[in-house]
Amino acid sequence: MSHDPHQSPFPASRKVFEGGDLEVPVREITVGGGEPALRVYDTTGPQGIDPKVGLPKRCQPWTDARREAGETNFSQMHFARRGEITPEMRFIAIRESVTPELVRDEVAAGRAVIPANPNHPELEPMIIGERFLVKINANIGNSAVSSSIEDEVEKLRWSVKWGADTVMDLSTGDDIHETREWIMRNSPVPIGTVPIYQALEKVKGKPENLCLSAFLETLEEQAEQGVDYFTIHSGVLLRYIPLTAKRLTGIVSRGGSIMAKWCLSHHKESFLYTGFEEICAVMKKYGVTFSLGDGLRPGSIRDANDAAQMGELATLGELTTHAWRHDIQTMIEGPGHVPMHLIKENVDLQKKLCHNAPFYTLGPLTTDIAPGYDHITSAIGAAMIGSYGTAMLCYVTPKEHLGLPNKEDVREGVITYKIAAHAADLCKGHPGAQERDDALSKARFEFRWEDQFNLSLDPERAREYHDETLPADGAKVAHFCSMCGPNFCSMKITQDVREYAEKNGYGDEQAIDAGMAEKAEQFRAAGGEIYLEQDKGTPLPTAP
Amino acid sequence: MSHDPHQSPFPASRKVFEGGDLEVPVREITVGGGEPALRVYDTTGPQGIDPKVGLPKRCQPWTDARREAGETNFSQMHFARRGEITPEMRFIAIRESVTPELVRDEVAAGRAVIPANPNHPELEPMIIGERFLVKINANIGNSAVSSSIEDEVEKLRWSVKWGADTVMDLSTGDDIHETREWIMRNSPVPIGTVPIYQALEKVKGKPENLCLSAFLETLEEQAEQGVDYFTIHSGVLLRYIPLTAKRLTGIVSRGGSIMAKWCLSHHKESFLYTGFEEICAVMKKYGVTFSLGDGLRPGSIRDANDAAQMGELATLGELTTHAWRHDIQTMIEGPGHVPMHLIKENVDLQKKLCHNAPFYTLGPLTTDIAPGYDHITSAIGAAMIGSYGTAMLCYVTPKEHLGLPNKEDVREGVITYKIAAHAADLCKGHPGAQERDDALSKARFEFRWEDQFNLSLDPERAREYHDETLPADGAKVAHFCSMCGPNFCSMKITQDVREYAEKNGYGDEQAIDAGMAEKAEQFRAAGGEIYLEQDKGTPLPTAP
Repeated sequence: MSHDPHQSPFPASRKVFEGGDLEVPVREITVGGGEPALRVYDTTGPQGIDPKVGLPKRCQPWTDARREAGETNFSQMHFARRGEITPEMRFIAIRESVTPELVRDEVAAGRAVIPANPNHPELEPMIIGERFLVKINANIGNSAVSSSIEDEVEKLRWSVKWGADTVMDLSTGDDIHETREWIMRNSPVPIGTVPIYQALEKVKGKPENLCLSAFLETLEEQAEQGVDYFTIHSGVLLRYIPLTAKRLTGIVSRGGSIMAKWCLSHHKESFLYTGFEEICAVMKKYGVTFSLGDGLRPGSIRDANDAAQMGELATLGELTTHAWRHDIQTMIEGPGHVPMHLIKENVDLQKKLCHNAPFYTLGPLTTDIAPGYDHITSAIGAAMIGSYGTAMLCYVTPKEHLGLPNKEDVREGVITYKIAAHAADLCKGHPGAQERDDALSKARFEFRWEDQFNLSLDPERAREYHDETLPADGAKVAHFCSMCGPNFCSMKITQDVREYAEKNGYGDEQAIDAGMAEKAEQFRAAGGEIYLEQDKGTPLPTAP
Repeated sequence: MSHDPHQSPFPASRKVFEGGDLEVPVREITVGGGEPALRVYDTTGPQGIDPKVGLPKRCQPWTDARREAGETNFSQMHFARRGEITPEMRFIAIRESVTPELVRDEVAAGRAVIPANPNHPELEPMIIGERFLVKINANIGNSAVSSSIEDEVEKLRWSVKWGADTVMDLSTGDDIHETREWIMRNSPVPIGTVPIYQALEKVKGKPENLCLSAFLETLEEQAEQGVDYFTIHSGVLLRYIPLTAKRLTGIVSRGGSIMAKWCLSHHKESFLYTGFEEICAVMKKYGVTFSLGDGLRPGSIRDANDAAQMGELATLGELTTHAWRHDIQTMIEGPGHVPMHLIKENVDLQKKLCHNAPFYTLGPLTTDIAPGYDHITSAIGAAMIGSYGTAMLCYVTPKEHLGLPNKEDVREGVITYKIAAHAADLCKGHPGAQERDDALSKARFEFRWEDQFNLSLDPERAREYHDETLPADGAKVAHFCSMCGPNFCSMKITQDVREYAEKNGYGDEQAIDAGMAEKAEQFRAAGGEIYLEQDKGTPLPTAP
């Protein structure tokens, strides 16, 4: 394989680099029709590199300098609270089109996290926080039933190609260490794990045999490899467990159920809670970010926002304060299954109980009745929860509840979540978010089919669907589409209308502006009730 | 083909009939594990009937009685305003689990419509209104480029199989009359059309050659066949057209652009507006329902909620009042492309300007950047707009903007919109809406795979996805799933936890209730901040 730094996995696209020495990768999409090229956020990472070699270690010099300076806490929050703007923060400021000061201040306040383990130098730094673009996570991982290491690395590349901002490796089984090593060395995005899964394997799958020392050993092993954030279910307290007994679907989180079983078996408080200080020591040493897991998240609409879930959430808030005392970055995981009317309450409670630490939610699914389509049931909830301030959305694939996702499921899940995240960005009015919508819509209106494909989240599918009805190359420049046929296309008619209007005195932009302002004023003056007579004051075109 | 009235197109399901002589069809799903069968709303219509024969004419006696009584206005609103509860209303009350009086009163007030042309006796009556279940519409129709009559009837059956509550026939081309006849005679759901399409063909595709008489003639022709509701773009007024000239995507509605072209060509007010009284005469005679079209709906995020759209909406409100003077049922069509933060404003304005006439929206799409996935971009908007009170959602398929939907696209679009509508029903707290979620979640938690498939919106896909990873029949009764593998399944662990808890004193339901109440009280007493010490007051199980 040969490596061209400008290579992009998308058509009509190339990587360009901003920020001088920082070399922040951005994808530039070439657009026709005299329109400017569009630059978009890029998660794809360097292309064409042999997976056995791994990606360039771009962050290594920054870490080396810190080690030379004798640092012992590698958390970005630690630097931020000292008032420093790190290269990671400057890199992120360029990606997000914000100031480096905003990045630093949000990290210092705990409202955003930069998951960046110094042992993961292949990383292209990114940020997770309400003030920034909504991020998405894709889960990959083998299981006892299927999949191989090569498959998993390919799934990683595939996930970041389509736009995953972080990837969680949920592998279990014999090759877990080696799988993770391959993933770390080939990932341009932060990698998260759930260390209790591997810890459980070390005790032969018996939750009751788990203990703090085995868990800390696992944390060290994974942090040493470069894992950027850990999901840890420290909020599953003994006293919350009976609250789940009358639930429709009990405890559905794997980590949560493991810890519940441990607590009940020993009749003791969770070692992930009582040992939180020892856990913090490892997190600090490697600059790993906490993702405090919601082990008691609801597994059905019926169980949403119940006492068990809210009790755990309050404990996660307490632990956030604890972690922050060590300058350890912390985000909070959320549900799950939540009907639409309970989503805002969930976010508001999370913000309050967890002191505005970033929220990282799975979906939520807004109904339980559509297995096979849970990427969609959850995209509705994800877009809503994102619009209310959730910083990162964990994807759900069409195979949720039914089986392991294959490559096409991962693509479908990632694109679906890019949609939810982008809809939320538009809703929040994120600067520049609408540029891509505008560019694509303009291309659509002007029948620039190639541009419409190239500007879309999934150019391959857009082209494939178009070609299914009209495969001829000529159709891609045709001024009609298959929906209406050649003699009957609303877009064509509108173009005629516009030309007609221009020919008759509507070409003058100022005149139109004045006309629109006048209309709006009349509309307002009438209290929203429109004038019932034809408006003589507006210049109307004469008949031809 | 043979006709068994109890036949359902779904597994483990049969049609049963409620309401005595009314014979209201309901789908009953058999459930295992000692759980009761679940009855769900059914749109599928009688099965196994030769399309050339057509469905039984179940409403014929009701219409015959009215004709004998000398009625001249066949609108359900007409009867409702006289205080009558028609058989259609009683039928609907059973389907919706509400009182017949509520149905009558909502129709009389104009807040709901029952599209039911007496010349469509094959209909199973249904209602569209905010107080009832959110409905969905599927569009079918040939075009100059592809498709045949047989294809279209099969698409109709396919649409209602998956759950379409109404179907719009958007056919254009030579066989338009015959296609429609086949569709009417085989449709158990209301059929809508956009008559201007056929009128345009009568004048050889030249919008400027349209006139009121050709249009009225088309209305008569279609109403005579039994079309239940007509989309008519009477709100595209001459003075609104220049307001679209500076839009990013001009006029994207076909009907809207046809009328815009007509208005500009003649420099006259739209004949659909000036001739509204004559149009009402036909509507009344056949009891057809208005669906006042949004010819100026936005075609992109940029153009959402602009002056052109809102001007037209105000005119639609004025026309609603006009139609109601004739007791003609009326609903209002809505956008289109709308970012999440403008959706509620849109619904609120529609309610205000259109006097709470039912809103019937296309999506809306919440971003423009995902052609190939616009069923999803729009499901987000559809669920939201439904939760705010929109009564019917017009589906969008994955082929939107790219080509004509095939059968699989129709299925994907209908199921996606069933999800959006159901999520909205849950949000609105519709009585009984959550029963199916609860039944499915309970089945999921108890590893009753067959029940999980059978209770889902698309049993075939759920089974197919499950079998892709674990095809063996044994896996369907296994107490684990492929996500976690046989030794490591959170649901299995939770079951163990529950059994354990029960063995140790949590089996007594009253004790659990008391425990939960106590917890909740403590939680509230702490002002949402959870107690930080272990609660000694709660009976905890002893270690084994």
